[in-house]
Amino acid sequence: MRTTQYLVATLKETPSDAVLTSHQLMLRAGLIRKLAAAAGLYSWLPTGLKVLRKVEGIVREEMERAGAQEILMPMVQPADLWEESGRWAQFGPELLRIKDRHDREFCLGPTHEEVVTAIIRDEIRSYKQLPANFFQIQTKFRDETRPRFGVMRAREFLMKDAYSFHVDEQSLEETYQRMYQAYCNIFDRLGLEYRAVLADTGAIGGNASHEFHVLADSGEDAIAFSDASDYAANVEKAEAAAPTIQRPAATRELTKEATPNCESVEQLTQHFNCDAQQILKTLLVEGATEEHPLVAICLRGDHQLNEIKAEKHPLIKAPLTLASEQQITSIAASKAGYIGPVNLNLAIIVDRDAAVMADFICGANATGEHYNGANWERDATISEVYDLRNVVEGDNAPDGKGKLTIKRGIEVGHIFQLGTKYSEAMNANVLNEQGKAVTLAMGCYGVGVSRIVAAAIEQNHDDYGIIWPDAIAPFTVAIVPMNMHRSHRVQEAAEQLYASLSEQGIEVIFDDRKERPGVMFADMELMGVPHRIVISDKGIDQGTFEYKSRRTNEKVDVAMADAVDFLNQKLAL
Amino acid sequence: MRTTQYLVATLKETPSDAVLTSHQLMLRAGLIRKLAAAAGLYSWLPTGLKVLRKVEGIVREEMERAGAQEILMPMVQPADLWEESGRWAQFGPELLRIKDRHDREFCLGPTHEEVVTAIIRDEIRSYKQLPANFFQIQTKFRDETRPRFGVMRAREFLMKDAYSFHVDEQSLEETYQRMYQAYCNIFDRLGLEYRAVLADTGAIGGNASHEFHVLADSGEDAIAFSDASDYAANVEKAEAAAPTIQRPAATRELTKEATPNCESVEQLTQHFNCDAQQILKTLLVEGATEEHPLVAICLRGDHQLNEIKAEKHPLIKAPLTLASEQQITSIAASKAGYIGPVNLNLAIIVDRDAAVMADFICGANATGEHYNGANWERDATISEVYDLRNVVEGDNAPDGKGKLTIKRGIEVGHIFQLGTKYSEAMNANVLNEQGKAVTLAMGCYGVGVSRIVAAAIEQNHDDYGIIWPDAIAPFTVAIVPMNMHRSHRVQEAAEQLYASLSEQGIEVIFDDRKERPGVMFADMELMGVPHRIVISDKGIDQGTFEYKSRRTNEKVDVAMADAVDFLNQKLAL
Repeated sequence: MRTTQYLVATLKETPSDAVLTSHQLMLRAGLIRKLAAAAGLYSWLPTGLKVLRKVEGIVREEMERAGAQEILMPMVQPADLWEESGRWAQFGPELLRIKDRHDREFCLGPTHEEVVTAIIRDEIRSYKQLPANFFQIQTKFRDETRPRFGVMRAREFLMKDAYSFHVDEQSLEETYQRMYQAYCNIFDRLGLEYRAVLADTGAIGGNASHEFHVLADSGEDAIAFSDASDYAANVEKAEAAAPTIQRPAATRELTKEATPNCESVEQLTQHFNCDAQQILKTLLVEGATEEHPLVAICLRGDHQLNEIKAEKHPLIKAPLTLASEQQITSIAASKAGYIGPVNLNLAIIVDRDAAVMADFICGANATGEHYNGANWERDATISEVYDLRNVVEGDNAPDGKGKLTIKRGIEVGHIFQLGTKYSEAMNANVLNEQGKAVTLAMGCYGVGVSRIVAAAIEQNHDDYGIIWPDAIAPFTVAIVPMNMHRSHRVQEAAEQLYASLSEQGIEVIFDDRKERPGVMFADMELMGVPHRIVISDKGIDQGTFEYKSRRTNEKVDVAMADAVDFLNQKLAL
Repeated sequence: MRTTQYLVATLKETPSDAVLTSHQLMLRAGLIRKLAAAAGLYSWLPTGLKVLRKVEGIVREEMERAGAQEILMPMVQPADLWEESGRWAQFGPELLRIKDRHDREFCLGPTHEEVVTAIIRDEIRSYKQLPANFFQIQTKFRDETRPRFGVMRAREFLMKDAYSFHVDEQSLEETYQRMYQAYCNIFDRLGLEYRAVLADTGAIGGNASHEFHVLADSGEDAIAFSDASDYAANVEKAEAAAPTIQRPAATRELTKEATPNCESVEQLTQHFNCDAQQILKTLLVEGATEEHPLVAICLRGDHQLNEIKAEKHPLIKAPLTLASEQQITSIAASKAGYIGPVNLNLAIIVDRDAAVMADFICGANATGEHYNGANWERDATISEVYDLRNVVEGDNAPDGKGKLTIKRGIEVGHIFQLGTKYSEAMNANVLNEQGKAVTLAMGCYGVGVSRIVAAAIEQNHDDYGIIWPDAIAPFTVAIVPMNMHRSHRVQEAAEQLYASLSEQGIEVIFDDRKERPGVMFADMELMGVPHRIVISDKGIDQGTFEYKSRRTNEKVDVAMADAVDFLNQKLAL
């Protein structure tokens, strides 16, 4: 592609309304444009669409390789189907509801469980046609209340959604594993660092679910993963491994000390000149039962409470609610910071790591006083040991293999064993081998195709712009001729190289604009073209072109005659 | 693809709500399904989507070859932009209007002139960036009042729309020609018989416009085209060539005859025992001016009035309105069937062919009487000679080359020189070479991608089902093994052939279901697979497979060892 015949559309200034790096770079590199004053609606310009189509292509190939069949369902969906599943009422205002000219109700599809279930209940009648797996790559719409971050959280976006159908859970599990592998293949081929993360199945109640996260410092989610196994989980959901040590025997007497103005762990560590690991934190929260209006939660001083885990405990009220000052004083003559388990007449739920502490410091249930040398059993009672804390960097992985690292991630994929949630509501059955009607088991599998483009940039950029992985670069090679419009030699060499590379199917952007070298370099770096060849009179005098790698900044002079081979070698890496 | 791992979805019965052949066959061959009770919304099943993607692929390649750059604009468009162009008010209820959660107005895009103009007025500032041509392939929505004929007139459909931008009309004309050629390439490659048809530019007022029609008996439009040149036009708009003969001299006296009950041309030909070509029809219609409240129109008896042409005459009121009985009796004591030009005190507008008649029969402006031997000038006055009639088969082509044939066509493409209609309303300017701001000239170019699939079927089918052109067949070769589940030899031969063909990238459907041969044959014929190989024990005994062409019904036995070469030859044709 010649830049004179192409909408380069790079911007020098960073648009003021873009805060996220990928959003800024997608605007500056000419990948997308916001549609007039409409928040969350973007047009994909040629450079952006090239990347999007490459991502789409890889996703499609891996879906087909996994045995999924491509279909295309309508974007506009009748309300009737959503009423069958019960989601017409459940879904919030993100579901854009529409009335047609005959005043019938529809929505713009944010997802297609209802539609695909309606198709399959008519088309598939027998176990012989199962398992079956269908995918589509389609524009979706979610009427986000506050669309932001460019295509990262847009209203209109491109999704790959797949839905699998099974006669039983075992078949679902098999396809789920196959799709898990297909997702790994996709992100491997995209050239992105990612983690498959165990996800919470709470709301939908299926058996298993994984999120796929592209790692990037700007990610919304913190991901904990093992340095020695495939284990990865959202920090919010990651199990803290059981401590490997036994609780040491008590070695100290229980003593009470005056601790004025010591309401935080930090103040206590200073006061006692000790480590936070020696301090036991006690929180009072509202209980879930009449018998236990308040419940005590104990954690080691250096650990943070994980609310999602706490809320799963049957005695603890969800959403988690800290006891009010009034509730606390009904128990003890103490501020919140001086509560401790000694002589506390409540259910005391203790984190696993807190339960193996000995000779610890804790509140004495009286403002301005703490105990030192406290020990479980001897001085305080444990009602139950429970996983209550967020994992931290360096924790043992809960699968017993390696230690946890924590990084931030951007969710770009989600796979889910739905079970019979939709098929039951919508009466989708098949005859099994025994001729008996059984409810279909379903899986669903999403990839945020347009979001991947933004996530790839979050992970791959520097101060000069985007650094595309080769597999999804809009162009693989940039040819930048110096003063081509004045040097016939440079022009001829550039045209020849352009022709040779194009002939081999290599995607080249040939900057034939009458621009200063600095402008051309800046544009090609901003656009993230992985491999750059500079052609100049000076180089031609020496019989060489200059090669530069966008990612490594490696710069080499390459003999003109070897340039095509050299690039082919680089591309094969 | 193995049929056991594929949603074949063929139907034995023709769904009762489908009247058009392509609609019936798309349902029966498992290409599409209607979405629940929602009219005009279809899901594309795997077989249909394969065809759709092939059409899409050919369209994309030819657009790129013509220098158009692919982009992707939002489907949901803000009302503001449509207000700028004035179409928010003009567009009828086909424009589906939406309110988002913040009560802002949007529509679901049926077309993208406004959006693309808004993008380009910001991105392109100088003539140096022009000409530029952008296309997208995208789902569109038109809220048809009565969606019907399957995907032929659906509410949601796949379009390729392209928009070109120019500094002047000459550049627009050049790109228009290039796109015209690209469209010809598309339909050539699709393997469809089509015509590019001159279209009316009335409403939008551009300079030129062509429609591309796939020829099929069920087409909504009648197309007249030359047997000796590229000339083609919608019959509604085709010019009737000027007669090549001079008006003969009068040879008969004007006589008046009693003609009771002769109000139609047919009755007159019987009464006079003559040809319809000897009869002059006269119609009274309302005039467009106060001076001429009624106007007479004269046509040869065998010709039909073309209302669109008549309405273009400045004296004739549009829409065309026949004179009432009362209006006629104010002129003559005559029923409508007895009106004629002799002594008629009105403007008399005469079709070109009627103007070269001599010694003709016409109404005598008195009920029950006609003249015979009438002649222009001597007996009646011509106010103006004008092209007023529909062309008929056998007419000379208006370009002077060959004779007209008339066939029916389905409109699948439309290209248009828009001029400045949108750029002016939306203030889209560029600086020209002289540094002066000029309004952009625009062209737009549409292809109905999903409609092409239906049109291809209308043109290519028989009693057994679809007959795909190779280029858009969902599968190129069908392997149908006989009793494979009982014959190990058949199974082995089928698997081997399947592997060999697949290895060469040939798209094969391998019918490995446990079905009766009749069912398999019927399904493959219904689905229109162009080339079929039957593998049987009997054949293997003779060392042959049976080949059959879906289109020609040619059947040959092919040596097993030669089958791959044989098929490759067939596919290369």
